Amino acid sequence: MKESSSDLQVRLNRVSPSYWRIIMDNPPLNLMGPKFVLQFREIMGAIESDEQLKVVVFESAVDGFFLNHSDFDVELKELTSISQGPTGLEAWPDILVRLQRVPVVSIALIRGRATGNGSELTLACDMSFASREKTRLSQWEVGVGMVAGGGPMARLPRLIGRNRALEVLMGSDDIGGDLAQAYGYVNRSLPDAELDGFVEALATRIASFDKWAISNTKRLVNAASLTPEVEMAAGWEACMASVARPTTQARLRAFRELGFHKPGDAEDRLGFYVGRLNR
Amino acid sequence: MKESSSDLQVRLNRVSPSYWRIIMDNPPLNLMGPKFVLQFREIMGAIESDEQLKVVVFESAVDGFFLNHSDFDVELKELTSISQGPTGLEAWPDILVRLQRVPVVSIALIRGRATGNGSELTLACDMSFASREKTRLSQWEVGVGMVAGGGPMARLPRLIGRNRALEVLMGSDDIGGDLAQAYGYVNRSLPDAELDGFVEALATRIASFDKWAISNTKRLVNAASLTPEVEMAAGWEACMASVARPTTQARLRAFRELGFHKPGDAEDRLGFYVGRLNR
Amino acid sequence: MKESSSDLQVRLNRVSPSYWRIIMDNPPLNLMGPKFVLQFREIMGAIESDEQLKVVVFESAVDGFFLNHSDFDVELKELTSISQGPTGLEAWPDILVRLQRVPVVSIALIRGRATGNGSELTLACDMSFASREKTRLSQWEVGVGMVAGGGPMARLPRLIGRNRALEVLMGSDDIGGDLAQAYGYVNRSLPDAELDGFVEALATRIASFDKWAISNTKRLVNAASLTPEVEMAAGWEACMASVARPTTQARLRAFRELGFHKPGDAEDRLGFYVGRLNR
Repeated sequence: MKESSSDLQVRLNRVSPSYWRIIMDNPPLNLMGPKFVLQFREIMGAIESDEQLKVVVFESAVDGFFLNHSDFDVELKELTSISQGPTGLEAWPDILVRLQRVPVVSIALIRGRATGNGSELTLACDMSFASREKTRLSQWEVGVGMVAGGGPMARLPRLIGRNRALEVLMGSDDIGGDLAQAYGYVNRSLPDAELDGFVEALATRIASFDKWAISNTKRLVNAASLTPEVEMAAGWEACMASVARPTTQARLRAFRELGFHKPGDAEDRLGFYVGRLNR
Repeated sequence: MKESSSDLQVRLNRVSPSYWRIIMDNPPLNLMGPKFVLQFREIMGAIESDEQLKVVVFESAVDGFFLNHSDFDVELKELTSISQGPTGLEAWPDILVRLQRVPVVSIALIRGRATGNGSELTLACDMSFASREKTRLSQWEVGVGMVAGGGPMARLPRLIGRNRALEVLMGSDDIGGDLAQAYGYVNRSLPDAELDGFVEALATRIASFDKWAISNTKRLVNAASLTPEVEMAAGWEACMASVARPTTQARLRAFRELGFHKPGDAEDRLGFYVGRLNR
Repeated sequence: MKESSSDLQVRLNRVSPSYWRIIMDNPPLNLMGPKFVLQFREIMGAIESDEQLKVVVFESAVDGFFLNHSDFDVELKELTSISQGPTGLEAWPDILVRLQRVPVVSIALIRGRATGNGSELTLACDMSFASREKTRLSQWEVGVGMVAGGGPMARLPRLIGRNRALEVLMGSDDIGGDLAQAYGYVNRSLPDAELDGFVEALATRIASFDKWAISNTKRLVNAASLTPEVEMAAGWEACMASVARPTTQARLRAFRELGFHKPGDAEDRLGFYVGRLNR
């Protein structure tokens, strides 16, 4: 890390040699732009190369937002000019694929909106636990004329079944904690007051186990469930093609007029506003 | 459509250029025979070739029956003599495969019995919403010595897991709305009074979205979840072989003596009567 | 069976020509050792070669234990010296693969602890029904430095999704009846007082159906859901490698000092004690 921690949108907190927490902190909306991706990639490299690490927890420092959609104030070329990662995929899908592969257990602790990138990070983590009251998961892309870029078309059908995956993707609506648990979109949703304690206990428990056993068990689970990289690549390419379409740009501009991309009701109830946009 | 609408067992209602409803209407039991298949196939072609269509809803006009098992009063050769469809599969599995592929969102609105073909149509749709009180899903075939012909052996394990798929298929029993939701057999079951409004709102919402985004997102979901056609073909062939067996014909005859294939208690509680048949 | 029934750890009860029950009876903990495996394999052969059999139910005769982890008092070489089975896999994964393939419906009736081998048998059965109050499912292996040997890394992600499979395997904790049902780890959990009647009714119902229809339907479900044997083999090899590690042997010895491997609180609340072991 070359920047001071106050400049960082993604911070690494080494709770112990075997247990790290990754804090996502880009207020006020926890949008994801190129800077976020580059900082995340640096941390991903640290996760991969550490020999003692067993478990990482992803959480947010921004009230109301676990991790949100992309930052549309940034020029698209700033994102696409980032070099490809070691998997040969573009930077964001590269990170998500490496997180699924790495012999370290990853846990998403979800409180607030997990839209687009936030949902994609959830799906790339090994487990996810969500605040029952304060979680809003969504893949909102189809609702504004886009295709999602971080692989939910590949991952959701295998996780929650084709019918519910298509509901999430085509409906582009917000999914609360209870429904997310019923669908298996997250492992469990817990009362908000219990969530932190639950995740802390589980992470500490796993951190006490043997790394060899963790690594080999995850390797074999991956043999049964790793998302094909060709599908991740195809999803990213369709996303880029969708953003370049004039009709999509027009929808995004119209959506800003409804309050999108700034703090307020439209970001708080994004699924509802997606429905209003197209009326 | 060459016939007047009153002759049609499957009707097409164009609510708007982007949103159609398909009404299944073959009273009193909504059985599926060759005429139904041919009319459905014609509508399937219309769905595939329309450039504005984004969402179709399947519903029933027959009280108590969404879509039921096949019509056993018709000679089997009337069904098998229908030409193969463009996929090279026989007519019914051909329709189901095309429905899964087509870049249009399909929604099953289920009220009443969805047995055999009705369950298979549900599984071929992109999403399904069911009346909590009035839904009876079932694959009844094993209970009368048959193998199902429209692909549930291929689709159910991938949707609800191998163990629950085997329970549905081997138990041959009726599954109500709550259990269907718990198993993921349908997306959700809703109070009967809320079902129509929910589906109307979702269909209208999706119809307002961009077709390019819908098409490309469904294409990528299909890459992760399309049922292999070879399994659909194998299921159809096993079904045909099962119907030709004398022991199966004897079971079907005995079942008619219990009230099967005519309005009444046996069709209303088919799962229970399947159990009585074999005692 | 050459031994008298009182010597048998696995007994076969032919309720009728079409319906058998397999009783696991190795008190006090229902551990699995080489003798158990050999007796189970003999019964597996009988299941495969019988022409009238349609359904088998697995149950326990030991209070509190459906089927437990392996017997660590036995020398490992007694287990590894058993000849490979007809699939070419080692004895235990060979049995589990054959159970999944055989054209007979298998049902696990779970009451008490189903840890390690007990969970693996559950996952190999076609269906499973569990006592809501008295079930404790677990894959405890990672918690003591092991990798599971009977294929849960291959089976759980396909059954309950990657995220919940990883929670079960990495958490190494006890899973009660309600959570097991919510995750789809079992078909259903039922009130303990209703469990026996439910399974008896379902088994009797299936036993009244046609064997040809059962066989061909299961064959086609297997086409969609059979666990790749290469993954079963890889899991077994990783398990053997894990047991041979000095650090794992040290953890197992320390666990015995906490009460592991003998009747009492540690076996009753194994998941809790796994957490204490590593503190």
